[in-house]
Amino acid sequence: MKVTILGTGIVGRTIAAKMKHLGHEVTIGTRNVENTLNKAEKDGYGNPPFSEWHQSNQGIKLQTFKDAARNTDLIVNCTGGQSSVAVLESIGEETLNGKTLIDVANPLDFSNGMPPSLSPVNTDSLGEQIQRRFPQLKVVKSLNTMNTFLMVNPGMVKGDHNVFVCGNDDAAKRQVKEVLQSFGWREDLILDLGDITNARGTEMLLPIWLRLWNALGTAEFNFHIQTN
Amino acid sequence: MKVTILGTGIVGRTIAAKMKHLGHEVTIGTRNVENTLNKAEKDGYGNPPFSEWHQSNQGIKLQTFKDAARNTDLIVNCTGGQSSVAVLESIGEETLNGKTLIDVANPLDFSNGMPPSLSPVNTDSLGEQIQRRFPQLKVVKSLNTMNTFLMVNPGMVKGDHNVFVCGNDDAAKRQVKEVLQSFGWREDLILDLGDITNARGTEMLLPIWLRLWNALGTAEFNFHIQTN
Repeated sequence: MKVTILGTGIVGRTIAAKMKHLGHEVTIGTRNVENTLNKAEKDGYGNPPFSEWHQSNQGIKLQTFKDAARNTDLIVNCTGGQSSVAVLESIGEETLNGKTLIDVANPLDFSNGMPPSLSPVNTDSLGEQIQRRFPQLKVVKSLNTMNTFLMVNPGMVKGDHNVFVCGNDDAAKRQVKEVLQSFGWREDLILDLGDITNARGTEMLLPIWLRLWNALGTAEFNFHIQTN
Repeated sequence: MKVTILGTGIVGRTIAAKMKHLGHEVTIGTRNVENTLNKAEKDGYGNPPFSEWHQSNQGIKLQTFKDAARNTDLIVNCTGGQSSVAVLESIGEETLNGKTLIDVANPLDFSNGMPPSLSPVNTDSLGEQIQRRFPQLKVVKSLNTMNTFLMVNPGMVKGDHNVFVCGNDDAAKRQVKEVLQSFGWREDLILDLGDITNARGTEMLLPIWLRLWNALGTAEFNFHIQTN
């Protein structure tokens, strides 16, 4: 299928490479193609510039957000949470309507340093904001509660652990669950929480995720909901 | 040891009964002893009135908050999160200073219906508020991320799952970890996150906990941090 990844950071790259590996036709969307290809510095996390990564991942297209979202079967939002709505605005409803979007982003606010805070919380979430702004886009919140390498390779952490899914459209959730299974997620470890308001719950996992990352000294961990 | 439980609700009762069963001298603190004993109705969750529970749990004392906290080795805060600071204020610093308090409460705000929201989040937590108001009280946030029956009986959920601990005083944390082990928590499943600011992370687990409760149809579950 045709898959569009919004965002050129490490999350976008990791999901794009996995999708390509699985045989999909992958296009990455970015604000300005030329600027993205001309960047020569590493990013804030020490990842190589996009062009360097792109050269070793041939066959993945790079287009503007709008062009990348135009003719596709699935959109994955891997932009920074604070700019996701603006990116989707720049694509426009007529292009987004009727499509499925996996929202991987978290509304992390780094303006007061580390660890970042969350905005919004409690009465809203980024997943809901996107769904409300684009009522005919089928938003499915998922994969936002773990390290990006684990998203596409659940076996990286041994034993059972979960990926959460929520959204208002059942067909879109089924589509996303199939994608997750193709990534290696066992069906019974995909936890469907219900409608998109549940994104408040999964986004609010980030504060303890960040603290566990610090306490454990590794990002190779995940939440497992242990039941009888 | 002498253990003081603040709060007569189901959490306070459950921890009090377990402490008594473990051989400790247990006192429950309440605002007004007479009113607590005279209540004849079930609580909002369908639990029997305190006096009924108290009759089948002989040997557990009931005193005012202040009296109960006076001569004790360990205080457990099981009051509602929105009133915890006021309860501790009513006890006063001179009584609290130097003691260890396990803060089990969550700052749940039910004023807008279900599911409750959290107040505060992000830049503060109930655990921190208590620690800041009573600098010489040794606050350890723990047990607030699960159903109360599981707190004192971790085997109720099969397999591995975690209890979190955080606080500023290492000796107090060691004391609390010993209590947790006496409840049945295996040492390697007690996760020490660090100082009391980590209470923001554990308190923010409540929103997804409440949604999982709904999605799974049972409160018999817990978070397990799966690592390699």
